[in-house]
Amino acid sequence: MAEQTQHEQASPAVQKRIQDSFDLQGLMAHLGARLTHIGPGRVHIVLPARPEVTQQHGYVHAGATSAIGDSAGGYAALTLSDEDSEVLTVEYKINLLAPAAGDYLEAIGTVLKSGRTLTVCQLEVYGVQGDGVRKLVANGQQTLIRVDRPAE
Amino acid sequence: MAEQTQHEQASPAVQKRIQDSFDLQGLMAHLGARLTHIGPGRVHIVLPARPEVTQQHGYVHAGATSAIGDSAGGYAALTLSDEDSEVLTVEYKINLLAPAAGDYLEAIGTVLKSGRTLTVCQLEVYGVQGDGVRKLVANGQQTLIRVDRPAE
Amino acid sequence: MAEQTQHEQASPAVQKRIQDSFDLQGLMAHLGARLTHIGPGRVHIVLPARPEVTQQHGYVHAGATSAIGDSAGGYAALTLSDEDSEVLTVEYKINLLAPAAGDYLEAIGTVLKSGRTLTVCQLEVYGVQGDGVRKLVANGQQTLIRVDRPAE
Amino acid sequence: MAEQTQHEQASPAVQKRIQDSFDLQGLMAHLGARLTHIGPGRVHIVLPARPEVTQQHGYVHAGATSAIGDSAGGYAALTLSDEDSEVLTVEYKINLLAPAAGDYLEAIGTVLKSGRTLTVCQLEVYGVQGDGVRKLVANGQQTLIRVDRPAE
Repeated sequence: MAEQTQHEQASPAVQKRIQDSFDLQGLMAHLGARLTHIGPGRVHIVLPARPEVTQQHGYVHAGATSAIGDSAGGYAALTLSDEDSEVLTVEYKINLLAPAAGDYLEAIGTVLKSGRTLTVCQLEVYGVQGDGVRKLVANGQQTLIRVDRPAE
Repeated sequence: MAEQTQHEQASPAVQKRIQDSFDLQGLMAHLGARLTHIGPGRVHIVLPARPEVTQQHGYVHAGATSAIGDSAGGYAALTLSDEDSEVLTVEYKINLLAPAAGDYLEAIGTVLKSGRTLTVCQLEVYGVQGDGVRKLVANGQQTLIRVDRPAE
Repeated sequence: MAEQTQHEQASPAVQKRIQDSFDLQGLMAHLGARLTHIGPGRVHIVLPARPEVTQQHGYVHAGATSAIGDSAGGYAALTLSDEDSEVLTVEYKINLLAPAAGDYLEAIGTVLKSGRTLTVCQLEVYGVQGDGVRKLVANGQQTLIRVDRPAE
Repeated sequence: MAEQTQHEQASPAVQKRIQDSFDLQGLMAHLGARLTHIGPGRVHIVLPARPEVTQQHGYVHAGATSAIGDSAGGYAALTLSDEDSEVLTVEYKINLLAPAAGDYLEAIGTVLKSGRTLTVCQLEVYGVQGDGVRKLVANGQQTLIRVDRPAE
């Protein structure tokens, strides 16, 4: 995927829909995560490293790494769904490739296959130093299901 | 596995080692999770439902569900390791079977195969109501690797 | 699950539907696999060890181990579906726990959660010696989707 | 990865080592699979579609699709190992994205992370028509462990 394509923005309506949903996720706020890119089929979430998200050696906990990966994939899938539907994670698998070190983590969810009912996403999480050096710390694959949005 | 076996306790030394490591995990404290059982090859972690761990519909976020499942499996593996080694999650796969509803979640990590280098665990997460009604909300499988404990 | 429950038979109509589908799978015949138990939510498939299914050390190839595991899970899901629908594997994850040695392999697929659209199965594969000694050689988890049976 | 890099060849010694091991896999011969590319960290395996590898609708069986994906990943890892070691599949997860149709399947295993003990590979399987039209039919992720080659 060309660099330009990767950073294509979703429409303002889609961006608003994703941001509104994200803002309802108590966990994302509690972890200190924020959305940094919403493109068609591709969403980035950043999580600053701080003591509240660590495991026993001071690296970011696999649970926090996975949480932002899962959310990035879920929202990437949602960018390709119509506004009457939403998506739920069916399952995911993630490999922790290296200690999650860095000033912050960046999770990237990318839609690999968008079907009528199911969507499959690739999940990548990078550890990023303040000087911009990046390292892939986790890589995963996720399956999501499209469901009707509950009436409000 | 008989009910009695399931609740066998690990030795005091092992229990202390697990609890000490858990207490170093900033994420577990931040989420509000606590260890509730440490048996040989089997660990339980409880996470009370509260707004800080939710997704957009008020259920517990898949990321929090996974985080306690991953930790429960990791500590289950650690109960079977000698004190000079520790375990790291290589990967895990988890299916979210039902909305993670309930007053609290209980994650159970159980060692399925303990090898010289690798350990494989089963992960189960139940949603539990105050009246004790339990429902399996997530089920997974995890691979861990034994490494030498870093010198202090 | 009690021993008796494990060996409960599916209805003759269900058994016939499963066997007919299995007989259409060229791969199962080519590998030499056969159905040995069809219960509600639980199916067994046996694969004799022979040179045609080995990897480079003479054990059964992970691909053959997985193939019978995947089919056992798929048919376990199908036993719980009505006759107008069928199931397709969405994804599975499998850990190869030990070399797949033995006179034959026995794959057991068990439904863990049967939903309206999706089914989740546990997959186990045992290596069995002629004297009946059994060893778990692979363990997995599978997601399937129910679809309308194509008109004939 | 640039197209040119993708088709870089491994050294003749490595190619021979991979081909020799492949030739010992009874399953690959029995399925009719063959190695078509051996590059550093990247291996292709082709499986012609024929009745012996089908599921009940005439598409290639998920088990056969997975078998060539697993082998492609295993040999990709082996290209990066020294000649005294070999690799075993620890686990893999694969999503079946579309019916495995085509005149043949092409599995591509690519090393994502090569560590001292563990290797993680990406698995892709394409359905290819005689006219060259390709479609991704399966995508997966695999963990392998390096072990000493048994003395002969």
